[in-house]
Amino acid sequence: MQGPVCPIPLRHDEQVVLGHGSGGSMTHNLVRNLFYAAFDNGPLLAGDDSAMLDWPEDGRLAVTTDSHIVSPLFFPGGDIGRLAVCGTVNDLAMVGAKPLGLTAGFILEEGLPIVTLQAVIESMRLAATEAGIRIVAGDTKVVERGKGDGVFINTSGIGWVPFGREISGRNAQAGDVVLLTGPIGDHGIAVLVARGGLALESDVLSDVAPLNLLVESLLSTVPDVHVLRDPTRGGVATALNEIARQSSVAIQLDEAAIPVNPSVESACELLGLDPLYVANEGKALIVLPQAQVEAALNLLRSQRYAEGSVQIGTVRAAPAGRVLMRTAIGGTRVVDTLAGEMLPRIC
Amino acid sequence: MQGPVCPIPLRHDEQVVLGHGSGGSMTHNLVRNLFYAAFDNGPLLAGDDSAMLDWPEDGRLAVTTDSHIVSPLFFPGGDIGRLAVCGTVNDLAMVGAKPLGLTAGFILEEGLPIVTLQAVIESMRLAATEAGIRIVAGDTKVVERGKGDGVFINTSGIGWVPFGREISGRNAQAGDVVLLTGPIGDHGIAVLVARGGLALESDVLSDVAPLNLLVESLLSTVPDVHVLRDPTRGGVATALNEIARQSSVAIQLDEAAIPVNPSVESACELLGLDPLYVANEGKALIVLPQAQVEAALNLLRSQRYAEGSVQIGTVRAAPAGRVLMRTAIGGTRVVDTLAGEMLPRIC
Repeated sequence: MQGPVCPIPLRHDEQVVLGHGSGGSMTHNLVRNLFYAAFDNGPLLAGDDSAMLDWPEDGRLAVTTDSHIVSPLFFPGGDIGRLAVCGTVNDLAMVGAKPLGLTAGFILEEGLPIVTLQAVIESMRLAATEAGIRIVAGDTKVVERGKGDGVFINTSGIGWVPFGREISGRNAQAGDVVLLTGPIGDHGIAVLVARGGLALESDVLSDVAPLNLLVESLLSTVPDVHVLRDPTRGGVATALNEIARQSSVAIQLDEAAIPVNPSVESACELLGLDPLYVANEGKALIVLPQAQVEAALNLLRSQRYAEGSVQIGTVRAAPAGRVLMRTAIGGTRVVDTLAGEMLPRIC
Repeated sequence: MQGPVCPIPLRHDEQVVLGHGSGGSMTHNLVRNLFYAAFDNGPLLAGDDSAMLDWPEDGRLAVTTDSHIVSPLFFPGGDIGRLAVCGTVNDLAMVGAKPLGLTAGFILEEGLPIVTLQAVIESMRLAATEAGIRIVAGDTKVVERGKGDGVFINTSGIGWVPFGREISGRNAQAGDVVLLTGPIGDHGIAVLVARGGLALESDVLSDVAPLNLLVESLLSTVPDVHVLRDPTRGGVATALNEIARQSSVAIQLDEAAIPVNPSVESACELLGLDPLYVANEGKALIVLPQAQVEAALNLLRSQRYAEGSVQIGTVRAAPAGRVLMRTAIGGTRVVDTLAGEMLPRIC
């Protein structure tokens, strides 16, 4: 993507039109004014069909992709731009990868105000800066009014995993401990409240945050981590079920140990939602040997985005593939994967 | 993405519902039944937040992304699935990269028939097999009826570029020659005709094809290639303008040398379109030294998807950044970048 020699400045009151997706001079102008200005880096500005990245040293490549369709675009604590960057950075971090670069593919709806797009891009720029990652390739398409919904953003990411680092949902072992980096459900409830129409007032902020620096700190102090997973769509319950199945182990949770902010708890009660299934965008589940728990919790609690880290459960041999919960009143119940859709378009 | 132990078979008459985007058991079931079945490979099936790829040897990484919103989803010669795979494979090939892996991010509209999705995925599987590339990571989101348009697909790609291979839009030099691998405009016209309502009958097929094997053959015979570019949105005119600007050179085209299939030509005449601006999805522009032209054309004409390769122009020092065309009647005119939108949602 190479622009005209002098891009024409966009007017403040401009809207996205189909020509912004033509691949011609209007696309170039949009890309130069908004994207190149925000994501200013060598590989992106080279303007070829693919961005070129140097390869740091031996290791493995981690690759991930996520499309973001959250509605509304802006919500307390974040917006689709911050979400798109953090979602993909976190997917890389969850296999112990250091992000090398992100791509951003935009599907814009005709009529979108340029200032809205600008705000989303600024938010992506800030999140990328915070995470220390570059957005190295992009694409812009435009669909007619009524064939999209403002902005959809796909972010794909590439990361580098040093040889010897083996973090996977397949690695949980009986005797391991499950940690969680803080209270659950904030993102889902913040987005839900932002939709309005619920007669619900709330001060809940989305937890959307990049976790890659946190994970690097953790792994440099406690390298023996077996599993990392961020409990996004489907929440903690679904993420733990995935791990239990991948590793063929049982996970036993302690209900009283799972932190939930009081305003999330009361919103969930009002709406009949179980916070275990509500999406998070700045939390991690960590499965590691019992012997590492103290060192891990000490490290985590000293880090931004993990001050509220706690132990929430343990890994057992049986029943394989199941998540069980010891309830506050002393019983045990099965915690299943989310069935159907609880909160559409939460990310 | 890990599914239930036994995925429930999808019914033939099923439609996409919001629950297919929940991240819970319905998403798992869809992913297992359709995506894992079609794109069966180790990195994908590992089911972690990022796929892990081995790194072959020293070199550089190429990274690219493209969102596909073509309308209609199926058109003569191809569909959105083949387009999504080929578009990204070709962007990698155009910097001389060998594809290592593709990601696929789906945004589905509620109500999409599962059989339609299945046909698109089968088409992606066939194109990936033809190109010899694996789809190693994916994501599925669902939007409400009327907030999308059937299927949008983002494909991002990662490739490996051997050290010493330097192919870029910045490398065109005065004295170089411009080759084109075949007749132009087929994709754009095929999609336009497929939309109907034009009172236009035509036998034009889209040229959508993966060019990576062709490019590898070319580079192994003629390594001294300066620029490769696929003239997609905006057509040959826009792609050459990009190269002229990136390299600060002039490109002089010979109108009579530019191949256009007769049915494309007559459709363009009827519709008032200039084939130079119509999208292609299986053609490459090749800029290389005069001394390499004969070897390159011999090689290209022996290869699938490049049988119709010809020389269409030359590179000059001035006027820098401009594309000029010697017309059939002997004059010279400026060929500018596409302004505005000629054919929305062509890819």
